[in-house]
Amino acid sequence: MTETFRKKDLLGIRDLSEGEINTILQTAESFRDVSRREVKKVPALRGKTVINLFFEPSTRTRTSFELAAKRLSADAVNISVASSSVTKGETLLDTAMNLDAMAPHVIVVRHGCAGVPHQLAKISRASIVNAGDGSNEHPTQALLDAMTIREHKGKIAGLKVAILGDILHSRVARSNVYLLTKLGARIRVAGPNTLVPKEFAGVVESGLEIAPTIDDAIKEADVVIVLRIQRERMNDAFFPSMREYSIFYGLTKKRMQLAKKDAIVLHPGPMNRGIEIASDVADGSSSLILNQVEYGIAVRMAVLFLLSGGSE
Amino acid sequence: MTETFRKKDLLGIRDLSEGEINTILQTAESFRDVSRREVKKVPALRGKTVINLFFEPSTRTRTSFELAAKRLSADAVNISVASSSVTKGETLLDTAMNLDAMAPHVIVVRHGCAGVPHQLAKISRASIVNAGDGSNEHPTQALLDAMTIREHKGKIAGLKVAILGDILHSRVARSNVYLLTKLGARIRVAGPNTLVPKEFAGVVESGLEIAPTIDDAIKEADVVIVLRIQRERMNDAFFPSMREYSIFYGLTKKRMQLAKKDAIVLHPGPMNRGIEIASDVADGSSSLILNQVEYGIAVRMAVLFLLSGGSE
Amino acid sequence: MTETFRKKDLLGIRDLSEGEINTILQTAESFRDVSRREVKKVPALRGKTVINLFFEPSTRTRTSFELAAKRLSADAVNISVASSSVTKGETLLDTAMNLDAMAPHVIVVRHGCAGVPHQLAKISRASIVNAGDGSNEHPTQALLDAMTIREHKGKIAGLKVAILGDILHSRVARSNVYLLTKLGARIRVAGPNTLVPKEFAGVVESGLEIAPTIDDAIKEADVVIVLRIQRERMNDAFFPSMREYSIFYGLTKKRMQLAKKDAIVLHPGPMNRGIEIASDVADGSSSLILNQVEYGIAVRMAVLFLLSGGSE
Repeated sequence: MTETFRKKDLLGIRDLSEGEINTILQTAESFRDVSRREVKKVPALRGKTVINLFFEPSTRTRTSFELAAKRLSADAVNISVASSSVTKGETLLDTAMNLDAMAPHVIVVRHGCAGVPHQLAKISRASIVNAGDGSNEHPTQALLDAMTIREHKGKIAGLKVAILGDILHSRVARSNVYLLTKLGARIRVAGPNTLVPKEFAGVVESGLEIAPTIDDAIKEADVVIVLRIQRERMNDAFFPSMREYSIFYGLTKKRMQLAKKDAIVLHPGPMNRGIEIASDVADGSSSLILNQVEYGIAVRMAVLFLLSGGSE
Repeated sequence: MTETFRKKDLLGIRDLSEGEINTILQTAESFRDVSRREVKKVPALRGKTVINLFFEPSTRTRTSFELAAKRLSADAVNISVASSSVTKGETLLDTAMNLDAMAPHVIVVRHGCAGVPHQLAKISRASIVNAGDGSNEHPTQALLDAMTIREHKGKIAGLKVAILGDILHSRVARSNVYLLTKLGARIRVAGPNTLVPKEFAGVVESGLEIAPTIDDAIKEADVVIVLRIQRERMNDAFFPSMREYSIFYGLTKKRMQLAKKDAIVLHPGPMNRGIEIASDVADGSSSLILNQVEYGIAVRMAVLFLLSGGSE
Repeated sequence: MTETFRKKDLLGIRDLSEGEINTILQTAESFRDVSRREVKKVPALRGKTVINLFFEPSTRTRTSFELAAKRLSADAVNISVASSSVTKGETLLDTAMNLDAMAPHVIVVRHGCAGVPHQLAKISRASIVNAGDGSNEHPTQALLDAMTIREHKGKIAGLKVAILGDILHSRVARSNVYLLTKLGARIRVAGPNTLVPKEFAGVVESGLEIAPTIDDAIKEADVVIVLRIQRERMNDAFFPSMREYSIFYGLTKKRMQLAKKDAIVLHPGPMNRGIEIASDVADGSSSLILNQVEYGIAVRMAVLFLLSGGSE
């Protein structure tokens, strides 16, 4: 079921086999306990360097990778773009090659354009981890979602998963669709028509269905993944107003009653409370949103560890 | 005289007993020597995480907490708000809960609104340290001021302390008043009428007096604490001009002659030289302003250590 | 040939003897291998603090110093100015004295004004490293350039070195001229007349020549150092357009044929490709631009180590 992880980079879920995904998740489970100990640190990556290169602002993902690196005893260096050489006219590839010449072990990259981590992977000796590239992929988010589901449902195969919201702009949705269908879940996506492109069904061979309404998607679901409305990525033309979005597409307690009784709710954060998710759902007993954050560190420790050639 | 420190958080001086304050100061004294050694590091917090969450800009306080954490061998992570999820519409409590799910040991918070650290303390498993909340409290500043006084005067009880300047906006003044009166000092505050509210006398039961003029406050003082004019917090209506402020309320060498011969001068920094304090006073032999900075690290090491359940 | 390094600070190349330069380069060679190992870390500066105080934005230099510090096991703290107390009206010297009171071992300073590191060195107990001060010096850049030349040419004495471009604004050019002439190289500088002041010849006693054209400078050169056009430092009056600059002063493959067959090309980065350097030169086999970055960490490790009293 698991398969030795031999890739140089983690660029997306699309490139991973089921066995590689299982290896990451299993490794993450063993690291989860590190963050629950009094001494939250293992010496696995002592003397190695992890560079967080963020071309988009981020609190949680950058902090999660930084803590993952530090809990593995790696040295972590943060570079955010506002203060970088990019403002001095340097090309992106030159920036990356320069950082690579400093001999880091891993460069974690977030960028607003799809494909940037793939370009960097080609020219760098360091392992590249995609921490989100445009609307393409966000693989560690999908991995932590999968870990959350597995920890609380015991499996992924056969589960009914609803993904709600702004599918069009969501790298989280894409990575989740790749991962969960590979592991045998059945996915129904739903949201405003303008945000759920028909072509989306084409990204995987099977296991994905576009539901006509959000209620149809939620019906009998084991897992409901609510996407964030990315107001900063959209002009207002996609739907009339935030208020209207929350009425027609927001996940409310009432809508959750359509799901299975023991259904769980995930959200990648940061949340727009009262828009895509009601507060009583976000804070309710079916919400695993904070567990996701906890597992995020474990998944990122696993990824950094496996890319360093560590075997589980 | 000392009392075991059992609090989960350090939110303000108001909540502390005299014994708890003495415990912090005594622990800080033992840590002071760490920063004077060649190897400025002890393993006390190895494998623990300290997050510095600053919603207001700060060089010295953030750096002081970061160095305190690192000299205790903790992992320190800095989050400043301009680049944070707050700009993505997340609530403050969600940001805090997310960070808390990453299992830090301590979250150090500075925020422009009074009471924010107290709100976070209620929902977090991590210990919260208030690094300044609006015009409310700045407890580690008061502790380092007290340490400075104790190191140079041998005691606090019975001393006459003048606090000069913008009392109204000063969390430093409030924390100092709580601390120094608890430890038996007598305080006289003075400044422009618009900045020394009559109601301020009510914050403690005894030991605090509002002096009619700055000269009255300084007379026979053992300690003179000059507050910073927080130009960024004020509109200009509080007093006519900076120049006028410096003439009527600035601490000059001449005014210092009203104090005791061996009086000491403190300032929380950053200083506006030539406004609230004359350069020859700031750099004079009675100034302990740089000692305050040194003791600041020791006090913050003590706070981080005691909140981790370390016993002195 | 080498000479024990006893200086408190590294402020510029001008102050260094040939022996001191050789000591730094020899120490750097021994540190170069640390970054090539699996475990890129030595305990030389454990328990010491390095503060990076940057008043100008920088990716590569700040990251290089940060990694150098961490690979020596020092604690590194970054302070950039946008979020600092300077915005609160504090003087530069007060900021520095405050940081110094926190007992760092080294403060690395970059500032837009020439002479700032020298001022700080006078008042600080910490060692000051100049990481670039206005148009004055950038000593670690010159040291890493020298290391790159020595590693690839086996020596510096007797080499012909061309330095091309914006000599007027370039602290890199100044530091290189001091260093390479001290070590016996012969330098020819060339660029637009407005950017190559006649007075520049006066900075060293001998070994420096101002070439009439860029082609004259390159002729028979062993080493070609291309400077960055610092668009952010110039108003447009120095030359008509970027396009014209690239045609008349850019280093192209054709121009490189004037140099010796085995000539090497250096650039301090970040590069403006297609302006001061053609892409096929930057990426060509004579380019050592990425080696410079690698050696940069080694040189900075050597500097931090020697300033701490470490002997080679």
